[in-house]
Amino acid sequence: MARAAAARSRRAAGVLTPVEERIIRAAVRLFAEQGFDGTTVQQVVDAAQVTKGALYHYFESKDDLLYEIYHSLIAIQLASLERILGAGDEPADTLRAMVLDLVETTAARVDEAAVFGREMHKLGADRMAAIRADRRRYHEAFRAVVERGQAAGEFATAVPAETVTLIAFGVINQLPQWYRPEGPKSPRQLGEEIATFLLAGLRPA
Amino acid sequence: MARAAAARSRRAAGVLTPVEERIIRAAVRLFAEQGFDGTTVQQVVDAAQVTKGALYHYFESKDDLLYEIYHSLIAIQLASLERILGAGDEPADTLRAMVLDLVETTAARVDEAAVFGREMHKLGADRMAAIRADRRRYHEAFRAVVERGQAAGEFATAVPAETVTLIAFGVINQLPQWYRPEGPKSPRQLGEEIATFLLAGLRPA
Repeated sequence: MARAAAARSRRAAGVLTPVEERIIRAAVRLFAEQGFDGTTVQQVVDAAQVTKGALYHYFESKDDLLYEIYHSLIAIQLASLERILGAGDEPADTLRAMVLDLVETTAARVDEAAVFGREMHKLGADRMAAIRADRRRYHEAFRAVVERGQAAGEFATAVPAETVTLIAFGVINQLPQWYRPEGPKSPRQLGEEIATFLLAGLRPA
Repeated sequence: MARAAAARSRRAAGVLTPVEERIIRAAVRLFAEQGFDGTTVQQVVDAAQVTKGALYHYFESKDDLLYEIYHSLIAIQLASLERILGAGDEPADTLRAMVLDLVETTAARVDEAAVFGREMHKLGADRMAAIRADRRRYHEAFRAVVERGQAAGEFATAVPAETVTLIAFGVINQLPQWYRPEGPKSPRQLGEEIATFLLAGLRPA
């Protein structure tokens, strides 16, 4: 347990070992095919070709796997967010960069996003609270950029920043329902179109 | 089976008996609490206070229940769609009416929408195809209204109608993730804000 907790802290910093990557990939595939409840730790062990001891060296429980599936995505997105905010650009450029990064990172891990979207309600209260805090952090950062643009007169104020934020995250969080890697548009192109539309909606009348 | 199939045809026309309503309500609650896989037909029978014979009089299987949970929502929405399109209004008014109706009907059945969003991948291929066809019908009608406005010069063409449609359905389909009936804004107010933003995004430059 102590070792698994230490592994969890390391992963919280975005560092995964190759064995952890293999276990997570196996878990994503099995949860996608059989659901979280329908998958046993033994099946993950078999699919990842590791020992049960190795799995428990890194992960406390099946809950820990589900948490990590999503956490590995949101950790990347939050790191990008810091970089984007750190650039200190105007609200419009900041918003465009956020949307592009969210679309590209979600498209790159679309299976993880799909599994997590379906199964997240199975997470225990502690891990759910941790995920909610990470999501809230991005949501609030996005809303703050919209509010900054509205306060500066660069963005329209007809629709509250909170609703604009829900619209932006709506299309991003629904992406696993319709995005296909083999589709005609690249994630970058989709991101550009979504950002262009959101900025058009924010243009002062 | 024949009787259940007849009941299904009747429900396809949007007509549910009080017993069917009670069974569906019990199924929504149990699927929400325990998941689709974790719920037995016997538990639905017990919760709805009907006999197993009564349930199978109306529903072929547990799959049929999951299908009906969503179908009862989309059937209402498709009926509204016909009414809205039949009014023959301008694209902007038509789009606003569609968004308002989608937000209000989804908010009114938010538990059903949440359960279905999580469990829809469990549906058998036939029922999934039927659901997809219903969703596609609304999606294509929405996109056609955007295209009509674009062709008439009333809407901007910077972003393809398909992407605008994905943005609109993104926020509507994600509504179960954040909408709470006790929240500060009514479904009508939320719908008005979302429609206002979408129409602002479609305003020609």
